[in-house]
Amino acid sequence: MKKFEHGGQIYNADGTTGDWLDFSANINPLGISEKIRAAIIENLDSVKNYPDPNAAELKAAIFQRYKVPPENLILLNGAAEFFYLYLNVTRSQKILIPVPSFSEYERAARAINAEIIYFYTHAEENFQIDAEKILAQNADLIIFGRPQNPTGNLISLDAIKKISANKNILVDESFIDFLKVESARQLVSGKISVVQSLTKILAIPGLRLGFAVAEKNLAEKLNAAKDVWNVNFLAQKAGVAALADEKFFDDTRNWLQAEKNFFVERLKKIPRLQVFEPTANFVLLKFDTAEIAQSMLKKLRQEKILLRSCENFAGLDGRFLRSAIRSHEENLKLLNAMEKILNLYISN
Amino acid sequence: MKKFEHGGQIYNADGTTGDWLDFSANINPLGISEKIRAAIIENLDSVKNYPDPNAAELKAAIFQRYKVPPENLILLNGAAEFFYLYLNVTRSQKILIPVPSFSEYERAARAINAEIIYFYTHAEENFQIDAEKILAQNADLIIFGRPQNPTGNLISLDAIKKISANKNILVDESFIDFLKVESARQLVSGKISVVQSLTKILAIPGLRLGFAVAEKNLAEKLNAAKDVWNVNFLAQKAGVAALADEKFFDDTRNWLQAEKNFFVERLKKIPRLQVFEPTANFVLLKFDTAEIAQSMLKKLRQEKILLRSCENFAGLDGRFLRSAIRSHEENLKLLNAMEKILNLYISN
Repeated sequence: MKKFEHGGQIYNADGTTGDWLDFSANINPLGISEKIRAAIIENLDSVKNYPDPNAAELKAAIFQRYKVPPENLILLNGAAEFFYLYLNVTRSQKILIPVPSFSEYERAARAINAEIIYFYTHAEENFQIDAEKILAQNADLIIFGRPQNPTGNLISLDAIKKISANKNILVDESFIDFLKVESARQLVSGKISVVQSLTKILAIPGLRLGFAVAEKNLAEKLNAAKDVWNVNFLAQKAGVAALADEKFFDDTRNWLQAEKNFFVERLKKIPRLQVFEPTANFVLLKFDTAEIAQSMLKKLRQEKILLRSCENFAGLDGRFLRSAIRSHEENLKLLNAMEKILNLYISN
Repeated sequence: MKKFEHGGQIYNADGTTGDWLDFSANINPLGISEKIRAAIIENLDSVKNYPDPNAAELKAAIFQRYKVPPENLILLNGAAEFFYLYLNVTRSQKILIPVPSFSEYERAARAINAEIIYFYTHAEENFQIDAEKILAQNADLIIFGRPQNPTGNLISLDAIKKISANKNILVDESFIDFLKVESARQLVSGKISVVQSLTKILAIPGLRLGFAVAEKNLAEKLNAAKDVWNVNFLAQKAGVAALADEKFFDDTRNWLQAEKNFFVERLKKIPRLQVFEPTANFVLLKFDTAEIAQSMLKKLRQEKILLRSCENFAGLDGRFLRSAIRSHEENLKLLNAMEKILNLYISN
């Protein structure tokens, strides 16, 4: 697996799609809501027009749900776009990345030839990010996920405030809507910016949608550094339809709360496996040896089940796998397959 | 009209759409093909997955039609994305822009705080770009459209070769597929890059799709400076379906060849109006006075017809309007409305 490859590798070399049960990408298993589907079909013919350059409806929907005023808002063709955009504008030159973490932070930092400082967090400490230690690091920017991907570690708002004493902070809250916690959006200032994906919670990674929140002057610069049509019209309409759909968000959180407990308890019973307590809809797994983990990955592939190998995450190795949490039925399939594979492995 | 506003302003302040006959954006009036519509509907459920990070099918379709090998290719969420991406990577500091031209060149140059050198082309010379004069300018990069928008001026491949002697060149061929001329893609080198929109020819500006061609090493840097999912999956599938649809491209060129002559001949009969010979699917108009032009714009709006005011183009003023060339029936509506308005204007 190459350094910057991601989960969700369901495509064959020619671009056709394999028939996978995909636990390697962390997408809401409730799937595309009927409201989103209807919005896409209803607006299909409108793709003959440019998207509204003001994206007035989408901005209103985001304000309604997240209380972000338009002057602080940057609309995104998916959250990943923002790491490149933010760094192109701020040109930070010493970037601290607590690892393991989502690899796009590092890839975007490399694209502007910044110096990257890896701040290793450790399995024995549940991958916690220690604010005091971060303060002592020489860097002008820190980028992390809240929760971090793949560890699930959720940094506190207090720690973020503390770190902002001597560093700019870009917080990636792409999984925040899966949780019932306060967002770092309330901390946005000249030093703290927050980006949020909407593709994972709304199950539309193929359509692309996200937003970021920044202090007004910075937001103005960020918006001036991208074209005004970057969010396609179907994504805008899907967002408008979905963000007002309170039931979908509630259903998602209720599904996750129930399923997370079930999934983790069952995983914990599997021998030779350490389970890191998840916060959002994914869980980090550590097998006793890389051999077991990689053999598990391979044998699950034969069952048409994809997990995410974590060997290309800085700070992890071949022993670590990441699994999405999916529907009860799908989770059962994975658990049963894993148990079967491990029993065979042990008996061999 | 603010400096960086574009045509296609069909949206009300709240984001709802007015019922306009839109000649202000230069979109193929043949509209969204049945093949594109079918591709979107067929793949709607697949937006629950990330797009293929290799975009293998789309790359193959582009190779098939345009003979661009994957190592020279940058896939785009619309052509406009490329001006920002290219400048973020190359960080050109003295950028020459022959004007009037598409305002995104200037907006992207400002976003990297580059020095912008306006090279004024003139109505009396049909807005020609003189390669010899360009060579004498002190700049490290020149950006222009081929054809230029809104003038329609089509620079020759020889002139491009000449200019590349002492300048990097970014050629915007976003309207090239409307014409039967050779593309500048064949000139791509370390100094010459070419970007092409697919949204205008395929009538999918709301879906976003484009590509650029650059020398291999530059292409690698450009691809490393954006995320791999920037082209949404429906746009990828629409592109795959449409690029193999030879009949659609033929029909488009045949429509334009016939309609361009008809439209221009009728426009030329309108008093107080100078018509600049179009190359692609839009035509630049110059009225005797700004008063007539702006009054025309306003009265056409009352008839629910949109033209593009050119007063925010550097080098033009309130006397200039731009009109798309649309279907015969729509062109007739516009011509009749313009004739009626001018007759009233003259008789008042």
